[in-house]
Amino acid sequence: MNYSQAQDEFLRELSEDRRRGAGELARRCLEMLAECAAQLPASAPEELHEDLRRLAEELMRTRPSMAPIKTLLERWLQTLAKNPEEKLKEFRTRAAEEAGRLSEFSLQAAARAAGCASEAIGEGQTVITHGYSSTIAEVFRLLRNKDVMAIVSEARPLLEGWRLAKRLQQWGIPTTCITDAQIGLFVELADVALVGADSVLADGSLVNKAGTRLLALAARECEAPFYVCCESFKRSSAPPGEFELEEKEAKELGFPEKLGVRVRNIYFDVTPPRLISGWISEEGIRTVY
Amino acid sequence: MNYSQAQDEFLRELSEDRRRGAGELARRCLEMLAECAAQLPASAPEELHEDLRRLAEELMRTRPSMAPIKTLLERWLQTLAKNPEEKLKEFRTRAAEEAGRLSEFSLQAAARAAGCASEAIGEGQTVITHGYSSTIAEVFRLLRNKDVMAIVSEARPLLEGWRLAKRLQQWGIPTTCITDAQIGLFVELADVALVGADSVLADGSLVNKAGTRLLALAARECEAPFYVCCESFKRSSAPPGEFELEEKEAKELGFPEKLGVRVRNIYFDVTPPRLISGWISEEGIRTVY
Repeated sequence: MNYSQAQDEFLRELSEDRRRGAGELARRCLEMLAECAAQLPASAPEELHEDLRRLAEELMRTRPSMAPIKTLLERWLQTLAKNPEEKLKEFRTRAAEEAGRLSEFSLQAAARAAGCASEAIGEGQTVITHGYSSTIAEVFRLLRNKDVMAIVSEARPLLEGWRLAKRLQQWGIPTTCITDAQIGLFVELADVALVGADSVLADGSLVNKAGTRLLALAARECEAPFYVCCESFKRSSAPPGEFELEEKEAKELGFPEKLGVRVRNIYFDVTPPRLISGWISEEGIRTVY
Repeated sequence: MNYSQAQDEFLRELSEDRRRGAGELARRCLEMLAECAAQLPASAPEELHEDLRRLAEELMRTRPSMAPIKTLLERWLQTLAKNPEEKLKEFRTRAAEEAGRLSEFSLQAAARAAGCASEAIGEGQTVITHGYSSTIAEVFRLLRNKDVMAIVSEARPLLEGWRLAKRLQQWGIPTTCITDAQIGLFVELADVALVGADSVLADGSLVNKAGTRLLALAARECEAPFYVCCESFKRSSAPPGEFELEEKEAKELGFPEKLGVRVRNIYFDVTPPRLISGWISEEGIRTVY
């Protein structure tokens, strides 16, 4: 496989990845760019720089609902600014190292955000969540000895809630798994709703797995606080109206195609800031955005 | 198969029926009681009356979330009041006829309620609904030439929304099918939310397929009216706190059992009257309950 094929392969993998959250995928992109920086054929730093810029921009376009990909890759491109003294080999090393440094920085930020969220949740509380987020999984791991209970909605179409429930079970956290349709019933048993984020928009609106907005509405209705926890790299400068919500293949839903009914499969929804009690990041908890 | 086996068979069928709504099942119960009235072995009217009463009470207990079964069967039992002149054969005929008359009356009421709802929905409107209700299907049938569009959520676990979508498609109504998790996204495209009912409680609270409450919350959030349409037999005198919400087998959700996670499968939820814009029945539209 040549470099061009490897890039195409990675772009397809990124486009089709339904398992990883936005933060994990952004770090995967940085890893891939580090590899390309080290190995792409080039005869001068300018040529390699241009190829890396083009590739990074294609990665950003591939998952438009995931702000951290854009944020981290743009920040990485900024670090690559020309140094006229630099040789190709030095440029390769620096570009790869910067990608690794940003990836590590993002990982640490997510871990600190999770730590901050875990401190906000009291001993013995019941937490309801929706979708899979590695940051929220980390919050539960930190809470595993604090006698908390979890309510996890399955998150159709791909039921990633089941994956989270499985991990919580391994950590000994009593977990109840429900259909998304039962969120309105089970939010009443929860002390707090806590979700991750794919992106947080300019006004504080939350872009997350479709169904999150219903959880926020239901939490508000029974006066349970609704928190979002994610690292600051997930912040986007886009206003809610200009943000693209990714849609995936209708066939994922399993509806018999021959019926001719239009089937929609939008992966994310937008929860407005008025339904959010707090934004938790590595910087602490903000209650006003 | 003897009569006792046939009754057990019917009770199991009633308990496991996930396809029919409350109104249809109540009418099935009346049919079955009419058959028993005509054929159960008995030597005197009193004996048959007692057997029918016991059977009717067992039917009511089998589906506690479905008020019309209780309402119609109690009404039927009232019509069976002793007539000392009556012979066994006359009693059999009268009991069977009363059951048929009530069933027909319920069917007509549902049809009139549907007619009333269809008049409330304007030409060219988009209607969002959740769950399967024969009354709501009838509303759409009446609207098939009024240029309306439908958004139907699938209604996990058994995806009865797909069944409704299929019927709407046959009537030429442009229909979009979504996961329950996307309700918050698609309610914004709807002019009105319209659902059927399993029961309407003493304070006007709506008992319907789990997820209905989320649709009502989302409709309120974007200022779309939320209507419930059902015949008056679905009214229950029970207050919300004393109403039993049926729970079915966890295995219907398909969650791998070996994980040991607790899986809940409550079929109905309760939508409080403050989220309901109007109650449509054969008597017309009430906007206050």
